[in-house]
Amino acid sequence: MEQRDRYFEDFAAGDRFEAPESVEVQELEILEFARAYDPQPFHLEHQAAERSIFKRLTASGWLTAAKAMRLFVQSGILRATGIIGLGVDELRWPRPVLPGDRLSLAAEVLETRRSRSNSRQGVMRMRLTVSNQHGETVYSCIPNLLVPLRDHA
Amino acid sequence: MEQRDRYFEDFAAGDRFEAPESVEVQELEILEFARAYDPQPFHLEHQAAERSIFKRLTASGWLTAAKAMRLFVQSGILRATGIIGLGVDELRWPRPVLPGDRLSLAAEVLETRRSRSNSRQGVMRMRLTVSNQHGETVYSCIPNLLVPLRDHA
Repeated sequence: MEQRDRYFEDFAAGDRFEAPESVEVQELEILEFARAYDPQPFHLEHQAAERSIFKRLTASGWLTAAKAMRLFVQSGILRATGIIGLGVDELRWPRPVLPGDRLSLAAEVLETRRSRSNSRQGVMRMRLTVSNQHGETVYSCIPNLLVPLRDHA
Repeated sequence: MEQRDRYFEDFAAGDRFEAPESVEVQELEILEFARAYDPQPFHLEHQAAERSIFKRLTASGWLTAAKAMRLFVQSGILRATGIIGLGVDELRWPRPVLPGDRLSLAAEVLETRRSRSNSRQGVMRMRLTVSNQHGETVYSCIPNLLVPLRDHA
């Protein structure tokens, strides 16, 4: 997947991709990310986590979102053009991410449309889905991406 | 703002809050976050950034989202109940975040509704808006939050 350069013309609704790499979420990273960006007690310490709705330490949803972005970049699906997000709709975290979970990413093209105002680019709407090692969805979102046409990247 | 404990009953559509603290985004943090979570050349090095659509180094949109979460946590608006996101809609990055930008957060309640299945909690839909030092919006999103009622947090 990493080897092929893809541009706007190379995508169509219904195309599906799976990122070749998966990534393990370490407890240390959960704690460090929470200290930096989501310093709520139930993301920072086990005792508070046990009293929370999740009953145990869980990753900030924003760490999961950030790790999904890394998996998406590393997948190479948009290596030639770069990943330029106009916006993201419908972020969902249907299950918590726990220390030691291994995450993998799948992407599906929902829609492609050429820009009316700029003939050199188009917009691609995708659904990204992150699953844990049990095949359960832990995160999904629908980014709208600016994707250049070939020879205009 | 930090001193008052708020529960579901204490919020109503139209309520507005401003986080008392603002935060500066340092170039080092932009680079370190990109290395960890968004390793695209235009977020990692100045030369590639100058060739990009932004013409200069910009923060990953996910760093902005993460810093917005920190500002939201620090605001104390939901200190009593915790911030439990069911999902987030309509993430937008209308302008790039640049090294040295100072970000501040405002929150508005869009809708509150009590849960039908669980009398101890409700769902609050908010709009979060992050502005830079020029008063320009650099990020907004619409989280749906699970908020316990008083005596059920």
